[in-house]
Amino acid sequence: MTDQQHLSRVTVPELDRVLGHRWPVLDDGFIRVIDYMGSDESVVQAARISYGTGTKAVHEDVGLIRYLMRHHHTTPFEMCEIKLHVRVPMDTWRQWIRHRTANVNEYSTRYSVAIDAASKTETNGWRRQSFKGKQGSEGFLSEEMGQQLTEREAALQLFAREVYDERLAMGVAREQARKDLPLSTYTEAYWKIDLHNLLLFLRLRMDDHAQQEIRAYASVIGNEIVSRWCPAAWQAFNDYGLNSLSLTAIEIEIARSLVSGERGVALSIAMRHGWLLVRDGRLRPNRERAEAEIKLARLGLNPPWQEHP
Amino acid sequence: MTDQQHLSRVTVPELDRVLGHRWPVLDDGFIRVIDYMGSDESVVQAARISYGTGTKAVHEDVGLIRYLMRHHHTTPFEMCEIKLHVRVPMDTWRQWIRHRTANVNEYSTRYSVAIDAASKTETNGWRRQSFKGKQGSEGFLSEEMGQQLTEREAALQLFAREVYDERLAMGVAREQARKDLPLSTYTEAYWKIDLHNLLLFLRLRMDDHAQQEIRAYASVIGNEIVSRWCPAAWQAFNDYGLNSLSLTAIEIEIARSLVSGERGVALSIAMRHGWLLVRDGRLRPNRERAEAEIKLARLGLNPPWQEHP
Amino acid sequence: MTDQQHLSRVTVPELDRVLGHRWPVLDDGFIRVIDYMGSDESVVQAARISYGTGTKAVHEDVGLIRYLMRHHHTTPFEMCEIKLHVRVPMDTWRQWIRHRTANVNEYSTRYSVAIDAASKTETNGWRRQSFKGKQGSEGFLSEEMGQQLTEREAALQLFAREVYDERLAMGVAREQARKDLPLSTYTEAYWKIDLHNLLLFLRLRMDDHAQQEIRAYASVIGNEIVSRWCPAAWQAFNDYGLNSLSLTAIEIEIARSLVSGERGVALSIAMRHGWLLVRDGRLRPNRERAEAEIKLARLGLNPPWQEHP
Amino acid sequence: MTDQQHLSRVTVPELDRVLGHRWPVLDDGFIRVIDYMGSDESVVQAARISYGTGTKAVHEDVGLIRYLMRHHHTTPFEMCEIKLHVRVPMDTWRQWIRHRTANVNEYSTRYSVAIDAASKTETNGWRRQSFKGKQGSEGFLSEEMGQQLTEREAALQLFAREVYDERLAMGVAREQARKDLPLSTYTEAYWKIDLHNLLLFLRLRMDDHAQQEIRAYASVIGNEIVSRWCPAAWQAFNDYGLNSLSLTAIEIEIARSLVSGERGVALSIAMRHGWLLVRDGRLRPNRERAEAEIKLARLGLNPPWQEHP
Repeated sequence: MTDQQHLSRVTVPELDRVLGHRWPVLDDGFIRVIDYMGSDESVVQAARISYGTGTKAVHEDVGLIRYLMRHHHTTPFEMCEIKLHVRVPMDTWRQWIRHRTANVNEYSTRYSVAIDAASKTETNGWRRQSFKGKQGSEGFLSEEMGQQLTEREAALQLFAREVYDERLAMGVAREQARKDLPLSTYTEAYWKIDLHNLLLFLRLRMDDHAQQEIRAYASVIGNEIVSRWCPAAWQAFNDYGLNSLSLTAIEIEIARSLVSGERGVALSIAMRHGWLLVRDGRLRPNRERAEAEIKLARLGLNPPWQEHP
Repeated sequence: MTDQQHLSRVTVPELDRVLGHRWPVLDDGFIRVIDYMGSDESVVQAARISYGTGTKAVHEDVGLIRYLMRHHHTTPFEMCEIKLHVRVPMDTWRQWIRHRTANVNEYSTRYSVAIDAASKTETNGWRRQSFKGKQGSEGFLSEEMGQQLTEREAALQLFAREVYDERLAMGVAREQARKDLPLSTYTEAYWKIDLHNLLLFLRLRMDDHAQQEIRAYASVIGNEIVSRWCPAAWQAFNDYGLNSLSLTAIEIEIARSLVSGERGVALSIAMRHGWLLVRDGRLRPNRERAEAEIKLARLGLNPPWQEHP
Repeated sequence: MTDQQHLSRVTVPELDRVLGHRWPVLDDGFIRVIDYMGSDESVVQAARISYGTGTKAVHEDVGLIRYLMRHHHTTPFEMCEIKLHVRVPMDTWRQWIRHRTANVNEYSTRYSVAIDAASKTETNGWRRQSFKGKQGSEGFLSEEMGQQLTEREAALQLFAREVYDERLAMGVAREQARKDLPLSTYTEAYWKIDLHNLLLFLRLRMDDHAQQEIRAYASVIGNEIVSRWCPAAWQAFNDYGLNSLSLTAIEIEIARSLVSGERGVALSIAMRHGWLLVRDGRLRPNRERAEAEIKLARLGLNPPWQEHP
Repeated sequence: MTDQQHLSRVTVPELDRVLGHRWPVLDDGFIRVIDYMGSDESVVQAARISYGTGTKAVHEDVGLIRYLMRHHHTTPFEMCEIKLHVRVPMDTWRQWIRHRTANVNEYSTRYSVAIDAASKTETNGWRRQSFKGKQGSEGFLSEEMGQQLTEREAALQLFAREVYDERLAMGVAREQARKDLPLSTYTEAYWKIDLHNLLLFLRLRMDDHAQQEIRAYASVIGNEIVSRWCPAAWQAFNDYGLNSLSLTAIEIEIARSLVSGERGVALSIAMRHGWLLVRDGRLRPNRERAEAEIKLARLGLNPPWQEHP
């Protein structure tokens, strides 16, 4: 009888195969999947209850998932849930935890002795401050400087651990002893989140502008885990999320003028928005113009203010 | 090697056995479990990572779960997730949806034709307005009145459906045709929530003050589903949540005086808080005093302002 | 002394001037602003604490707000909060309330008698079901049909109210008497939300695909209220949010080929993604292709599968 | 005309007077109020729209606020919002940020150079590890030990800052240079939250079990800020929240037996729940029993398993 039909849980053999597997990240971190609920199929199932007969027009599941992703119908993706066990430097965790729509149980250095591991930097891993963008890094310092920096790092981490251990030995409360641990100290957590919010996390944290450390974690989650768990959603996210391009109202106007060959019009639009101020005979830096250049280039369009492409 | 150890998903055979089963609620509603993640064991697992060695003192899992519940350590309970398929009158759903910490996919009457079912009231099911409390109902109207009310209900629901069907037949958009559907019309939804937030829902909605209809749903979720899914958490919730008693600072003072036999002191505390104002030689109604009476009675204490218990 | 400097609250005279004003919406609804916190200035202030010296590079406030909006730095926009008093048909409210990140106090038909007003449709206001899209409406039914529909609507609403009043008169509890009220019945609520989440709401609900009724409310909130409250954020939202264009990875490829004049390449990309299946000598409908056509048109590009632009 | 009546913003002169004032916390932290929305009056206003005529029975505002607090009608308290500027050691901030229902803009050590201040411990401020409870501290270490610990703390903080400054001087990216900063380093943030969620925060963080550092912040927020902002809600929170007492179902049973003089019954209840296991002729430690003892004592009840009260 259909009313009393029995269900079995949705399973994803591809993911079951790697349940508990530790993907190493950084020098001493990891990510592993503890449990999950749902799959691509669950996204489809939820959409079909929501959109009812309306969804019959979309004959196949992959097409429906792609449609949902393209149109920001996000609630069906919330029907999948995953639970990860992660080991992360506290510094990275500080960024991670800012994503509020997740459930978290973190290792407590109040109840327990802090994990005796801090993330270390290899001599060729010291990144140079970028002065172009507002943040971030670009390129690496010399191996020579790296050696000096890595030695000092080791000395500091050693000293910090000594002081921590001394405090415990002298009877200081753990909650207070930990106060000077370096941010590089590893912590562990169970982190549980639904697929929609996980994709929001990945979109921000797999981005070029994300800090390298958290990007390393996000890449494993995306490329190793979500790709196995919900392959259709993952592909749709790549096509419509990660690799999409958002044009502002101003950029649309400029692109349109360029497409129809009206470079003068495009130029005047840019001027009107203050993109082309000149100082000492040269264009002054303008962030919005710089962003537009990159986007136009992706469309094969050559900005009229750049003479030689 | 323990680092690369393989995991299997946590399963709960008791719940697996009833997956997909429809528990009927009201005249045409139901609840069924679609999927779940975690179990009592997952609560323990999460607590142990959080509290680390600290939890070793608690030797057995049930004791740990009870400790967590008693002390409002709620995050480990967030590590379990359940997905229900429910069929509910829209009127009840309006209350249900106010619980914001859940994922929802509701049947859309914009995309699809509205479900052709409205909740009906039996002739002996018409509740009388309560005038004591600020809301709610108490007792039932006579069978005779009930017959009249049930007839009119049927007539109204029939008329409403006729008008809806007419609109569709004349080509009115579904999104507009639905505008006069009665609140009693059934809707369906997938509703996904973590165990901690589900217990908050149950605490409010299994309560005496909750409206009978939503209480019927909440009782099935609690007694039939959570009790199978996470029996230790469910028992702890009964002992420390559902059946607990919260005394205010004022009630503690009064109880303490009564316990030590100082009825005069108890009386003066009640007076000081304006509980014993008199009009026409009788105590004026006072909500806080009335609440205190019920609580003191649960402790076997007899308020000093009530001469004969 | 700067450490103990005194602050005054941020005020927005433009908004203060209309505080409490009722903007009418639909036949008997309204929106009014009850209170607010913050302004454009508060967005800037929050960004400057977050990005510290980094933001000094952005010399003026408007430029910073525009930068934040363009780059989805959303947290500074969460620093502004607004509280509205709205009167809305329950049918519309059902959509509204799905936005979970808001604080709500709704008029209770459990504690109080339901508002005696239901939204009515004018004879020329009956919308035709659209069969192209998956939802929505297009165009209107004839005035003649409209008259018939409006009459029936009035009869149904009258009957529903009679039944409701009868129930109350017979002593039925309000919580039960309301069960067959039509969804068109007005409700009222206080709705409080931060600017970031309000803009998410507006992006969805001012969109062409949103139902006309909620769009009417969203337009008032955007055009009348947010525009006065935070004019710089509002302008940025228009340029980078409302009127922006998101191209998928596939659309970028096609646009790029068209820009460089390689129509054949563009065609083969579309084919590879199954956009150009033919039945009976004609292109079969394909949603993704149809969406691409609209976007390419905004850029002035002519799809290679359309012979005559 | 009432429909178009003009409103003025709710203001709280008591709070306006201290807007921007820095309350110092710890050795170098502070809290100040930047802005707020609403007051006690707004709680009442929201409750009255929600509960409509039902609230007319409660004649005065303070009584209504107390009623709402006692009955966990939390939504009206969400109608008030406050924005604080805080300066906190990162170690404390890690606990703080776990409260997810708030809006946050934190000072970024990625965009800017880290604040050059770390929280220091006075020689008489080193707390001893507690071995009774599962966490926390009790009492202080000797002044002599304190001197040694404080010296080492200073040396470590100095070294850490040297290494940080060296890295910046050598051109290391700020995002990487910060990786070994001690957790004691101060950070700053704007933190915005509604009154209901702020009270939840205070209930946890003003509690005896909260760590001393965050308790210092919570106390200022409660005693200095909320008390001025919403005095009636604050008083109700003290009476019904902070100083209330929650009895479990088991404790109720035992208390009831004790009240009626049936010590033997009380004893057998305790036994049945495994509270009275004996080892080597003495009662084994039992957490739940220990908790019950404290609660019974607050009611003036003497547990039957303790011979001499």
